[in-house]
Amino acid sequence: MYQLVEETQATIVQSLEQHDSKSFVADRWTHSEGGGGLSRILQDGSTLEKAGVNIASVWGTLPLEAEQVMLHKEGLGTGPHQFSAVGLSIVIHPRNPHAPVVHSNYRYFELDDGRWWFGGGADLTPIYLYEEDAELFHRVHYECCQRHDPSYYPRFKAWCDGYFDIKHRGERRGVGGIFFDDLRNEDPETDFAFVSDCARSFLASYEPILTRRSTMSFGERELRWQGLRRSRYVEFNLMYDRGTRFGLRTGGRVESILMSMPPTARWTYGHEPEAGTPEAATLEVLRSPREWAPPGHTEKEQ
Amino acid sequence: MYQLVEETQATIVQSLEQHDSKSFVADRWTHSEGGGGLSRILQDGSTLEKAGVNIASVWGTLPLEAEQVMLHKEGLGTGPHQFSAVGLSIVIHPRNPHAPVVHSNYRYFELDDGRWWFGGGADLTPIYLYEEDAELFHRVHYECCQRHDPSYYPRFKAWCDGYFDIKHRGERRGVGGIFFDDLRNEDPETDFAFVSDCARSFLASYEPILTRRSTMSFGERELRWQGLRRSRYVEFNLMYDRGTRFGLRTGGRVESILMSMPPTARWTYGHEPEAGTPEAATLEVLRSPREWAPPGHTEKEQ
Repeated sequence: MYQLVEETQATIVQSLEQHDSKSFVADRWTHSEGGGGLSRILQDGSTLEKAGVNIASVWGTLPLEAEQVMLHKEGLGTGPHQFSAVGLSIVIHPRNPHAPVVHSNYRYFELDDGRWWFGGGADLTPIYLYEEDAELFHRVHYECCQRHDPSYYPRFKAWCDGYFDIKHRGERRGVGGIFFDDLRNEDPETDFAFVSDCARSFLASYEPILTRRSTMSFGERELRWQGLRRSRYVEFNLMYDRGTRFGLRTGGRVESILMSMPPTARWTYGHEPEAGTPEAATLEVLRSPREWAPPGHTEKEQ
Repeated sequence: MYQLVEETQATIVQSLEQHDSKSFVADRWTHSEGGGGLSRILQDGSTLEKAGVNIASVWGTLPLEAEQVMLHKEGLGTGPHQFSAVGLSIVIHPRNPHAPVVHSNYRYFELDDGRWWFGGGADLTPIYLYEEDAELFHRVHYECCQRHDPSYYPRFKAWCDGYFDIKHRGERRGVGGIFFDDLRNEDPETDFAFVSDCARSFLASYEPILTRRSTMSFGERELRWQGLRRSRYVEFNLMYDRGTRFGLRTGGRVESILMSMPPTARWTYGHEPEAGTPEAATLEVLRSPREWAPPGHTEKEQ
């Protein structure tokens, strides 16, 4: 797993750098108990306003409180246990408001009593909805799922819509993708093959979108809307995201956890886009998630 | 209480409008069960980038879940109860980075079983620390407390420092002020007199600061730092503020609750101000709260 995340990080960083006049910087850190991570960060770039492609491999003692949150499906914890975790985490906030935000994360976790599982996923957050972008992103993940288990995409797509729910707004964070946790088949190699395939599909699901949107023209109106949508991203991450809240409350590395935050955000009292605008059309899809990939792909409702 | 918040809102709005080329707009809303509120909002002003002076008077059924959170000192709830609440809430985000953010809130709550209490407070969040501003803000609140109960200021100042704690950052939100909850003396008139005095002290504690800071010059550097400090404000409100989290989770009015959010915010990976700069000096005080008012006032440490 460590080899996978290290290689994938290098490949993704190298590809993304082709889109920007700036390069990623490397920030290496160590975990107090054992292991550490390598964050690759690009800020204030020409195409990427803020991007992080981070890997970590840490081990140590898992606090009982943490175990109870993580093992929500297995009842109360039996620890404290020794744990080992390896993960890859990607967040990209492009500068152009026509280019969507993307997030992806794949992780492997094991405890000293023999339990282990994989988790992860990828989701797309358009500022302005382009249906072909949502379709491409979902299609790549759909095809990846189909190569491993036909039950995966429908389950993980629905899980993603359910997870990235900004409940107080009645909006999803974006147009979703896939999300899964507690993945454990009989043979870890089966799950590792799936997770590897997902991680290696990242660029195919996002790079064409970044390319075609980053040259579109925009002005003050688009930037204001981008700021508002970014504020909803902030609200989701700080209010609902398990990883963020849990990480911050249990003394995780603040900079790595909050790498996901957008470079800027804007809150305006009582803002509601005018009917018939591209902003309203985007919001409508966030309020009513759609199917984007075959075979469940349906025509635009209403 | 309703008369107090209505009159105080009118006075504060009238005074703040003297500082800006724009006026406050009025947004009246109704609560589904009973009552409602009047939000007075000024956005994108010359001096006030975003300001809200809001009152609400609502009644209805208090969900048991809500009661359990609110009555944390009294054990499990016995409801659902009928409740009635009246409150005033002020948040001001000035445009000039030299002018501090201010927040104040005073509220009265009663249940159908005869329980009642007051809560509230005021706190100041400098972007750049000016000691005389923190001293003025604390002195006005100190003097207000002294007029009612000499035990109040030390308790409520410490409560404020404890409450506005951005735990994952190891920083306070600002230089504090006073904070109190569950205030219930034998005679409600005693507490009402204190709360009235506090609410009527708001302008004296803040208006001179707004006046002297809003004409100071600033540039890109100050605006970037303001954006970073505003992001910490967002982190506190969404991660830790009881009113915000509780309100959003129990179906409160989203726009009223998130009125407190700054107009803009900025997150930069790995930012740490250089030693010896005004930014570093401000951060130092947020990391180690000080005494600002007599008689506990001490000289600047270190």
